[in-house]
Amino acid sequence: MTEQPSFLKDSARVDSAAAEPLPSSRKVYVQGSRADLRVPMRAICQSVTPTDMGGEPNPDVMVYDTSGPYTDPKARIDIRRGLAPVRAAWLKERDDVEELGEYTSEYTRRRNVDPRLDPLRFFDARKPLRAKSGRNVTQMHYARQGVITPEMEFVAIRENMKLQEAREQGLLTSQHQGQSFGASLPDEITPAFVRDEVARGRAIITANINHPEVEPMIIGRNFLVKINGNIGNSAVSSSIEEEIDKLTWGIRWGADTIMDLSTGKNIHETREWIIRNSPVPVGTVPIYQALEKVGGVAEDLTWEIFRDTLIEQAEQGVDYFTIHAGVRLHHVPLTAKRVTGIVSRGGSIMAKWCLAHHRESFLYEHFEDICEIMKAYDVSFSLGDGLRPGSVADANDAAQFGELETLGELTRIAWKHDVQVMIEGPGHVPMHLIKANMDKQLECCDEAPFYTLGPLVTDIAPGYDHITSGIGAAMIGWYGCAMLCYVTPKEHLGLPNKEDVKTGIITYKIAAHAADLAKGHPGAQLRDDALSKARFEFRWEDQFNLGLDPDTARAYHDETMPKESAKVAHFCSMCGPKFCSMQISQEVRDYAKANALDERTALAAGMQEKSRQFRKSGGKLYDKI
Amino acid sequence: MTEQPSFLKDSARVDSAAAEPLPSSRKVYVQGSRADLRVPMRAICQSVTPTDMGGEPNPDVMVYDTSGPYTDPKARIDIRRGLAPVRAAWLKERDDVEELGEYTSEYTRRRNVDPRLDPLRFFDARKPLRAKSGRNVTQMHYARQGVITPEMEFVAIRENMKLQEAREQGLLTSQHQGQSFGASLPDEITPAFVRDEVARGRAIITANINHPEVEPMIIGRNFLVKINGNIGNSAVSSSIEEEIDKLTWGIRWGADTIMDLSTGKNIHETREWIIRNSPVPVGTVPIYQALEKVGGVAEDLTWEIFRDTLIEQAEQGVDYFTIHAGVRLHHVPLTAKRVTGIVSRGGSIMAKWCLAHHRESFLYEHFEDICEIMKAYDVSFSLGDGLRPGSVADANDAAQFGELETLGELTRIAWKHDVQVMIEGPGHVPMHLIKANMDKQLECCDEAPFYTLGPLVTDIAPGYDHITSGIGAAMIGWYGCAMLCYVTPKEHLGLPNKEDVKTGIITYKIAAHAADLAKGHPGAQLRDDALSKARFEFRWEDQFNLGLDPDTARAYHDETMPKESAKVAHFCSMCGPKFCSMQISQEVRDYAKANALDERTALAAGMQEKSRQFRKSGGKLYDKI
Repeated sequence: MTEQPSFLKDSARVDSAAAEPLPSSRKVYVQGSRADLRVPMRAICQSVTPTDMGGEPNPDVMVYDTSGPYTDPKARIDIRRGLAPVRAAWLKERDDVEELGEYTSEYTRRRNVDPRLDPLRFFDARKPLRAKSGRNVTQMHYARQGVITPEMEFVAIRENMKLQEAREQGLLTSQHQGQSFGASLPDEITPAFVRDEVARGRAIITANINHPEVEPMIIGRNFLVKINGNIGNSAVSSSIEEEIDKLTWGIRWGADTIMDLSTGKNIHETREWIIRNSPVPVGTVPIYQALEKVGGVAEDLTWEIFRDTLIEQAEQGVDYFTIHAGVRLHHVPLTAKRVTGIVSRGGSIMAKWCLAHHRESFLYEHFEDICEIMKAYDVSFSLGDGLRPGSVADANDAAQFGELETLGELTRIAWKHDVQVMIEGPGHVPMHLIKANMDKQLECCDEAPFYTLGPLVTDIAPGYDHITSGIGAAMIGWYGCAMLCYVTPKEHLGLPNKEDVKTGIITYKIAAHAADLAKGHPGAQLRDDALSKARFEFRWEDQFNLGLDPDTARAYHDETMPKESAKVAHFCSMCGPKFCSMQISQEVRDYAKANALDERTALAAGMQEKSRQFRKSGGKLYDKI
Repeated sequence: MTEQPSFLKDSARVDSAAAEPLPSSRKVYVQGSRADLRVPMRAICQSVTPTDMGGEPNPDVMVYDTSGPYTDPKARIDIRRGLAPVRAAWLKERDDVEELGEYTSEYTRRRNVDPRLDPLRFFDARKPLRAKSGRNVTQMHYARQGVITPEMEFVAIRENMKLQEAREQGLLTSQHQGQSFGASLPDEITPAFVRDEVARGRAIITANINHPEVEPMIIGRNFLVKINGNIGNSAVSSSIEEEIDKLTWGIRWGADTIMDLSTGKNIHETREWIIRNSPVPVGTVPIYQALEKVGGVAEDLTWEIFRDTLIEQAEQGVDYFTIHAGVRLHHVPLTAKRVTGIVSRGGSIMAKWCLAHHRESFLYEHFEDICEIMKAYDVSFSLGDGLRPGSVADANDAAQFGELETLGELTRIAWKHDVQVMIEGPGHVPMHLIKANMDKQLECCDEAPFYTLGPLVTDIAPGYDHITSGIGAAMIGWYGCAMLCYVTPKEHLGLPNKEDVKTGIITYKIAAHAADLAKGHPGAQLRDDALSKARFEFRWEDQFNLGLDPDTARAYHDETMPKESAKVAHFCSMCGPKFCSMQISQEVRDYAKANALDERTALAAGMQEKSRQFRKSGGKLYDKI
């Protein structure tokens, strides 16, 4: 172990706020078919229903857990060492990868011997892995061979969330039938179903062989809708330490993947720290770093520099690459009359390159060469929508849809190589044009997973674009989008801080969950029902803890009613003690029960006597604390 | 003038933060057909496009303005006097109202002579108005007589927002065609169209004859989608002064109506202060106050007490009453098996009353008597959905839809009296069940305007229910809902403070505007396009000022880039100076222009020479401030 990098100051732990279990929650590991296959979930414990409302115990609610070992009190966290390589044995057993004696990327080699970078460097004793010559190590390749990998089994257990147990307990009876727009959501996710979806290209498991720390997850429309959180330093501000803080903070609140969009200095070293400490897949946009390497002059980019960057990042363990290979020369002039031109950074770089050289981009021309790299490390494509609309006015235009058609062509090429693909989508789209995006994507890209940024449904609310985009995200998730890239309140204005990251993540968890509910994802309504029952029964602590953000819910409650006794009070601040609709509802229920009333039987009864009794015995409203 | 009430401390002005013009905005009055008909709008002024991007001037953007005289620097604001009675002459001219010598309500009379209330009382020298015997003073009644009232003309001008001028300037060309689900949005709103919609019952102008201070507005699916903000003190906290602050703050950010939901002490006096100072319609739930009058014991409520409360509030000037007359006895047992029973306060009060007396509620039985009161003051019905679902699980159930059918019956009774009606709707509804709510409401209630609370599309995010509900609100607004009742982040948890009110309002302005865009409301996209153009041209100040909340947008920007020079910089903090997609887009545009390229012509050209020239001359990226 080298000396602790200076930027870490005295702490080798992550921010303690990001490394505590969530309230009333415990980490549960579900054992798979082998000892080293342990799938993490979070069990939220509930209290007993008050005696006067039934007194029954309330079962633990299992929720999907993206936070990795950070919220496991038994895990030893030391960001200088990184996380444990949970996949290491699985990779080794397949016997199709080799440990390289040296990094392949020239850039990496130069960085590694530069003593000025020592204070910044993550010390990794491991050597990079690469597929043995002639081998293809993608999950899609295995799936197409009929193999169920441990990654697939892990994903199946994770997606199921112990739903069988809930079903046996009768907890799934009340869920509304969904409207899935053609998604096929099985009652139980089996490893074989995961394999089949991956083989079909309808879902991807983004897990680079050089990211053994990752807890496998899946992105596809027949699974839970996922969300991505962007982090990354820029030329203007932020540090490595801040970015690691954002990582652990983002996954605490539910980010399923993280994209490192760094564009400033030391992005190689920043990325290494992030990957080694990330239990979720990490995505990047390699062209950003390639551009740094040519001093920010887009037209000086070359295939060789880009290729070296891909390998550099693949050997670090990046799980998916955004690649804007769909920006073709003839698309570029289609953007000239737009209100907001080209707003994707990657798209604008490639557009500039295409114009300057007046030829198709090296991304497009070398697409099969890129596939060769992807399959040697199992990096997934996130085919970038470089021409996505940057305003409502530009939505669904010829440039956008022209590029989408190209992305469909590229998908089929990638699939020929058994390389996993998802497709990036807009952007800014008014509500009534969202479904056309989803439908066209499914059609052009043959159901490869869609991964959209929002979309923002209006341009007029800078400072609130988590909300303008959360609306569109929920809708497109319902229509079939597999992963939603978050937008923070700082979008268009500045760089998100930790609080913005959290706000963006929670907003997108709402969107993703609302989509799961509307699609009718089995079991999606369990958590809603549990929280609503807790609310009805004035189990305040349970209501907070079952929510996406217990801390904020508790703080808001305490602002009006700070006393501890208020947390067990049978009323809330909105109505006050004498006047509570939930309380009255309980009386209605008691009344119906006491009088054996059900549904419309009350109507027929006409019981003046019962009415008199009720008035006499009827529960007084709870009128003091 | 009596002495200043003690609660006002030394200030007779509203919070100065709520009484300044918004940045770069000026109050504009559009003159109608008579001198006293001046319709307020807000003109947002823009700067000139930078020279290197065209140098053209950018026109003022007109936006709908709910803030009343508070944002007019020429208006003299003194909340002890209240606002000027802009409608006074219109009311008088119709010669169908009489000034009463004394308040009709016994309760009012008692309050008025109670010296202990002097310190709290708003001093109003005016006498209450009431329809002359046998007259009907509702806007619906006039409309059905073929009369175009000044209120209708005011509304027409207000809804048009000077769109004719924008059209003549060619600013409306790019708007997407909408999808209106049967709404009929004319290119120009004429006074006759307003009249016809009001006569048809498809829209309402909520304007009590005792609220002459109101600036008329309209609620209906063929007009701009409106939003309501709730204020009101409770038994637990808040004061009159706070509530007035919330009023002026709420309308500053865009509340089209305000509901005063006070349940604590002195709600009569609080309401008087609110109405006298409100330029927007004020709604209430009279049963709340009636319940206070019987010590909080629902079963002790009587028609007589309720009737006196209606008259008390009607003579103060409340513009619409939420009345839960649709809660019928046979509906109540339908809620017994719900996850969250009855969550509407009004609904639970009436349910309790019905069960205790085992008979239909006095609201239902006296509905025609209520209509008689409504038409004597032109109070509009907001028929309450007392059985709305309080959880996703309970959405669209028999209790909810049973009540909705009853609301349809009541609508037709009210219309028989020419009384204006809107219908309240849920609540908690997953996305895929929202449209069924809208469709059923249109069908049952014969297109009377729908007014929904959210709906919240999931229950799992206490602390973020402005967002869970904003998603549902945007969607139901698109489907045809006329007014959206806001939800603040404190929903389910506590009482909103001023900051929560603002967050709720902005979220709902987003939802309403997104709905207008999706419906294809003429001109809705103007503001989006202007803001996006400003964004593309790095007119930072214009981008802030055109947004729904300039203050927050500016503050967020300044957090990352505080320097003044950054506000004119041709880049932002997200990409930094060397690396900016907007800047590159501009180059693409310049290139296309310089080379007379358009659309696909670039493709055919194959101009190596042009490409060489571009490299030589091509704009370097703007690389320092």
